[in-house]
Amino acid sequence: MSLRKQMRIVGSETPDWRDIQEAHERIAPRIHRTPVLTSESLDRMADAKLYFKCENLQKTGSFKIRGATNAIFSLTEEEARCGIVTHSSGNHAAAVACAAAWRGVPAWIVMPKNAPAAKARAVESYGGKITYCEPTVSARAEAAAKLLEETGAVMVHPYDDDRIIAGQATAAKELMAEIPDLDAVFAPVSGGGLLSGTCLGVRGMREGVGIYGCEPAEADDAYRSLKSGEMQKTESSHTIADGLRASLAPRTFTILRRHVDDIFLVSEQEIVFAMRTVWERMKIIVEPSSAVAVAPLLREGGAANLGILERAIGSKLKIGVIFSGGNVDLANLPF
Amino acid sequence: MSLRKQMRIVGSETPDWRDIQEAHERIAPRIHRTPVLTSESLDRMADAKLYFKCENLQKTGSFKIRGATNAIFSLTEEEARCGIVTHSSGNHAAAVACAAAWRGVPAWIVMPKNAPAAKARAVESYGGKITYCEPTVSARAEAAAKLLEETGAVMVHPYDDDRIIAGQATAAKELMAEIPDLDAVFAPVSGGGLLSGTCLGVRGMREGVGIYGCEPAEADDAYRSLKSGEMQKTESSHTIADGLRASLAPRTFTILRRHVDDIFLVSEQEIVFAMRTVWERMKIIVEPSSAVAVAPLLREGGAANLGILERAIGSKLKIGVIFSGGNVDLANLPF
Repeated sequence: MSLRKQMRIVGSETPDWRDIQEAHERIAPRIHRTPVLTSESLDRMADAKLYFKCENLQKTGSFKIRGATNAIFSLTEEEARCGIVTHSSGNHAAAVACAAAWRGVPAWIVMPKNAPAAKARAVESYGGKITYCEPTVSARAEAAAKLLEETGAVMVHPYDDDRIIAGQATAAKELMAEIPDLDAVFAPVSGGGLLSGTCLGVRGMREGVGIYGCEPAEADDAYRSLKSGEMQKTESSHTIADGLRASLAPRTFTILRRHVDDIFLVSEQEIVFAMRTVWERMKIIVEPSSAVAVAPLLREGGAANLGILERAIGSKLKIGVIFSGGNVDLANLPF
Repeated sequence: MSLRKQMRIVGSETPDWRDIQEAHERIAPRIHRTPVLTSESLDRMADAKLYFKCENLQKTGSFKIRGATNAIFSLTEEEARCGIVTHSSGNHAAAVACAAAWRGVPAWIVMPKNAPAAKARAVESYGGKITYCEPTVSARAEAAAKLLEETGAVMVHPYDDDRIIAGQATAAKELMAEIPDLDAVFAPVSGGGLLSGTCLGVRGMREGVGIYGCEPAEADDAYRSLKSGEMQKTESSHTIADGLRASLAPRTFTILRRHVDDIFLVSEQEIVFAMRTVWERMKIIVEPSSAVAVAPLLREGGAANLGILERAIGSKLKIGVIFSGGNVDLANLPF
């Protein structure tokens, strides 16, 4: 992939900047403005200045509440009346269940059988009704279609939805508002909702910022899609990064092709190392999917070895990292 | 103990408000301004509005860097030249090692044999030189006295020191600046440095705020001291709250008698439950000593059962909780 996109035109796509601003106004009273944390230890390892946007500390434990709240509170009374259907490996599920409860409507959630127990418990705690399915992208879609027919509810797709992407964009928007002079932003990629939102949220605030997706090598469809220029699928994956097992949709693929500078693949071992390092050094609980976003920066040689844009000699790169969530099963840690 | 002190006179004690302001100016460029986080789940359990001052996210993983930095950067060149000696169960040790390294002088640290391995590793990572001793208050003092004689270094006591107390006070000062209308503040108590600082930091910002210490029942010397009006000791304790095994000193006892409304004792089981609840719901890593400060609020009945001051009917109590640190051994969790 030849990286560092030369031309980027903002405003001609959906969701546009106005959609993102409206999403932010709609959700801000209901969600946390999450802190941006720093760590000298991790800065040393990365040989860069890192700014962590802590969506692991967000309501429901992930950024997903941003998109879900925006989508569900965008619905008319008539649209919302019969409730919401979605499919999700966990965090979007909990977010939809929570936002639907705030709106006072039911939520039916399709979850893969291999979703973490803690995430299923979270969905139930918000009153969501779970239907389990095989852990494949197609099984999810089928189960959701069946529920839609049975309930008359409305679908809120986890990422192939402009309202969702506009909501997820608000995390990067807040990060850029707090640290305006970032050189680059790193975010994990799965279906591409967060990374698409990150592209649009960053671009709306400032041009010239590098945008990098981070993906488990065991679920590398976004990497293959951007390299080949054609949308690829990961039909099934058992990566420990349970939030990153989905594949891009046409809508997110289009946005990522336009804005993403590169995708970095990380091994399962690198994910566990990054997760443990963040727990130990930053004292915050990140789930494996969050750790994916910082894992490439913690390799030998740090940021300099990733071939991302250079700064003037003598000044460190300033890199934003979006920690997507903090939902882990404490009884089942990988260390 | 008849609680809710009727008369509190500020300014006639040491450290005074000016000392605390100077400490804050001295340390602010070197430490994190830690976030104040909230959690709807914990609010529901406590039936109150809780505001958590996250010193677990502080540099070196605890509030101790505030006092240590203030003390060590208050020294003249001549005083600092031969380095620093201290004794500590772990967090003050790491803080002194770190602040001494910032100042460019050596640090000799006496630690009890039963201190967590992770805390000893942290001291070594900052270049501190450890001497192990028996886990008793008197053994610590003896080992420190010997080191002072050998090295010509200066003692920075973990809590019986005005510069330390003034530094620790800055955490409550920041909390009150961010949430000015708190009804009460909860902090853990061990030697009393943090709780004394909390008293002075809160009082300097506003009168009429309840101040409550929280202590393991298995190391209840502060409770017994305030009930009896005479300073009591905990000679040795194996409470899981490894940061709370020390006993009050005359200086901290005097401040606590004057300002603390009550001390709540918590069981080992309550500490582990509180710790796990914070990890699961707030996605932050708190050590057992931090969990002690919120444990009384998570009991059946919540804040209302603690007999703390009442608010106008219909409005929830607003309670600040100081999370003291986040240094745990991930390979040795109690759940």
